Amino acid sequence: MSNPSLLILAGDGIGPEVMDEVKRIINWFGDKRDLTFDVSEDLVGGAAYDAHGVPLHDDTMAKAQEVDAVLLGAVGGPKYDDLDFSVKPERGLLRLRKEMDLFANLRPAQCFDALADFSSLKRDIVAGLDIMIVRELTSGVYFGEPRGIHMEDNMRVGVNTQRYTEAEIERAARAAFELARKRSNKLCSMEKANVMESGILWRDVVNEVHQADYADVELSHMYADNGAMQLVRAPKQFDVILTDNLFGDILSDCAAMLTGSLGMLPSASLGLPMANGRPKAMYEPVHGSAPDIAGQGKANPIACILSFAMALRYSFDEGAEADRLEAAIEKVLADGARTGDLMGPEGGTPLSTTQMGDVIIEAL
Amino acid sequence: MSNPSLLILAGDGIGPEVMDEVKRIINWFGDKRDLTFDVSEDLVGGAAYDAHGVPLHDDTMAKAQEVDAVLLGAVGGPKYDDLDFSVKPERGLLRLRKEMDLFANLRPAQCFDALADFSSLKRDIVAGLDIMIVRELTSGVYFGEPRGIHMEDNMRVGVNTQRYTEAEIERAARAAFELARKRSNKLCSMEKANVMESGILWRDVVNEVHQADYADVELSHMYADNGAMQLVRAPKQFDVILTDNLFGDILSDCAAMLTGSLGMLPSASLGLPMANGRPKAMYEPVHGSAPDIAGQGKANPIACILSFAMALRYSFDEGAEADRLEAAIEKVLADGARTGDLMGPEGGTPLSTTQMGDVIIEAL
Ligand SMILES: CC(C)[C@H](C(=O)O)[C@@H](O)C(=O)O
Ligand SMILES: CC(C)[C@H](C(=O)O)[C@@H](O)C(=O)O
Repeated sequence: MSNPSLLILAGDGIGPEVMDEVKRIINWFGDKRDLTFDVSEDLVGGAAYDAHGVPLHDDTMAKAQEVDAVLLGAVGGPKYDDLDFSVKPERGLLRLRKEMDLFANLRPAQCFDALADFSSLKRDIVAGLDIMIVRELTSGVYFGEPRGIHMEDNMRVGVNTQRYTEAEIERAARAAFELARKRSNKLCSMEKANVMESGILWRDVVNEVHQADYADVELSHMYADNGAMQLVRAPKQFDVILTDNLFGDILSDCAAMLTGSLGMLPSASLGLPMANGRPKAMYEPVHGSAPDIAGQGKANPIACILSFAMALRYSFDEGAEADRLEAAIEKVLADGARTGDLMGPEGGTPLSTTQMGDVIIEAL
Repeated sequence: MSNPSLLILAGDGIGPEVMDEVKRIINWFGDKRDLTFDVSEDLVGGAAYDAHGVPLHDDTMAKAQEVDAVLLGAVGGPKYDDLDFSVKPERGLLRLRKEMDLFANLRPAQCFDALADFSSLKRDIVAGLDIMIVRELTSGVYFGEPRGIHMEDNMRVGVNTQRYTEAEIERAARAAFELARKRSNKLCSMEKANVMESGILWRDVVNEVHQADYADVELSHMYADNGAMQLVRAPKQFDVILTDNLFGDILSDCAAMLTGSLGMLPSASLGLPMANGRPKAMYEPVHGSAPDIAGQGKANPIACILSFAMALRYSFDEGAEADRLEAAIEKVLADGARTGDLMGPEGGTPLSTTQMGDVIIEAL
């Protein structure tokens, strides 16, 4: 059997730096654990625009469709702010999500014990926090038609369409229920069914899937505005949260920030199974391209490395190896290893991106 | 000249209880400050549905259009959860907003010094917090057409439309710039212009209004997901925030919860000037109908009383009287007056709704 394949799209800003550390980790697994990947690399976002005039080349798209998993760094930067909407770095990312049909975006918001004091929230509110947000990623207002800016009575009008079919809601819901079963068996679904009919359909379909196949999972519903409140007030009341593309964008960022260490948070975007049984998949850190510190060796590579751990778990069924990698990271943090973003007011000398990679590989 | 007129719509749950205290405050201003209002009362939400089968009777709507200001308590409750979308309590509230054309929803998120410890955030992150969120309230995905649930290829599809005209964005932006000028002269506008064309138009129009008439105000833009993060991370970086109806719903609730005392937060919804120069206006607390404690005399009336203070300021040009009322509330809090929602872990006996009204009137 041939090696599993990975396509690395490091992207913009700190993407390439943090991905360099992931590559070292991948090599370590090849050398030491006999887990060898066929790795290829390509461009996405601003980097692709600079080379090809588009934020994702068709050839790259085709490669992404063929590999077992894509690892993405980050896209965007001020250099590209004035580009036309259709070629902005983000469009490359959105095209990958859409064409690979990665409907289930898994965003853990986990508070590492060693880092609980970095949160703007009180320690007891966030210590031990471990939420999984499942965000629908291929539909809703991100992709709905009609969309655009047009003239009406001599005035510009901006339109986007929130649109969900029951099939789209159902498959996202199933992904969330499955995850809930592997965790605390508790799912909270969030929408605005009090204001939006698409939210009513969302709630109805989630209830139907629940009754049909997941009655053992404890299901609740919450309006998304209340969800934002409750995340801030008492986030530990949640285990798995299911929500749509736009609410998921905002709520998962809110949840991520509760942990106080954005540089630590990975994500997985999963689609349908391929012929080999593995799901279509892309893994990326939750943080952005951080142009302000790009190229300085200051970035925290952990979120990107943990994204590779998610790949081990969800794409390659190597849960034990993912555990090993996560344990190494917890160990170095407990031992006091810190990049600049994790420095407390007491100061000290932060590790560089590469040094953080070094200590993680050592711990492995 | 006749007295200014108020329509009180106490609504559901704790609405009537907290509104009773507001009525006593209104009477106090009549007795002691020669500020007499013509007060009428009517039904909204579930209460209106129970009486008339609709969450807002046409006669009530007509009255609301005629008075100088509406004071609203809260709508909704589990009793009405299974009602058809078109007659849910919320529809009464949304009809008032839409038909009165209350496009500028002002939601202060203020952290009272005496209460800073109630926040789930660390004291130094929130103490002294004073943000004003201006939420567009009459357009966007709340009201855009087409909307609804229809069948397509034997499958249900839920649709809502996010739609903004440049005139709608412009008037909300002007309201926000005007407010910014009266505060720290700083405005941050939030949308998802990286994903939604309606967000691009939003950003463009805000920039145009800025350049044309408010170049003295410091303007910044932020994606709404980052906005949610920044609110959690370092809320004091903001002064006035401008955003659309749906983002405003979520971000203002998130901001409100930062303060830790939802029972304290008022809101104003303002429209165009009427013939007498006063804006169309409705004032309501940010909290909901809290069915779990309704009818028990436990509710905190302060948010509703502060909403009346906003009415004094924005509808009746009685800023000094609004200051007086707000100062009385700060005083009783500093003196230790607490309703149940404001009790710390150390316990003690909370004041009832009426007792809180008593001490505020005494302080006045
Ligand atoms: C970069 C942007 C298009 C993207 C989104 O809005 O989905 C990002 O915020 C995210 O959450 O992955
Ligand atoms: C009750 C509901 C319709 C309303 C909204 O979504 O606007 C509420 O959440 C609010 O923020 O005033």
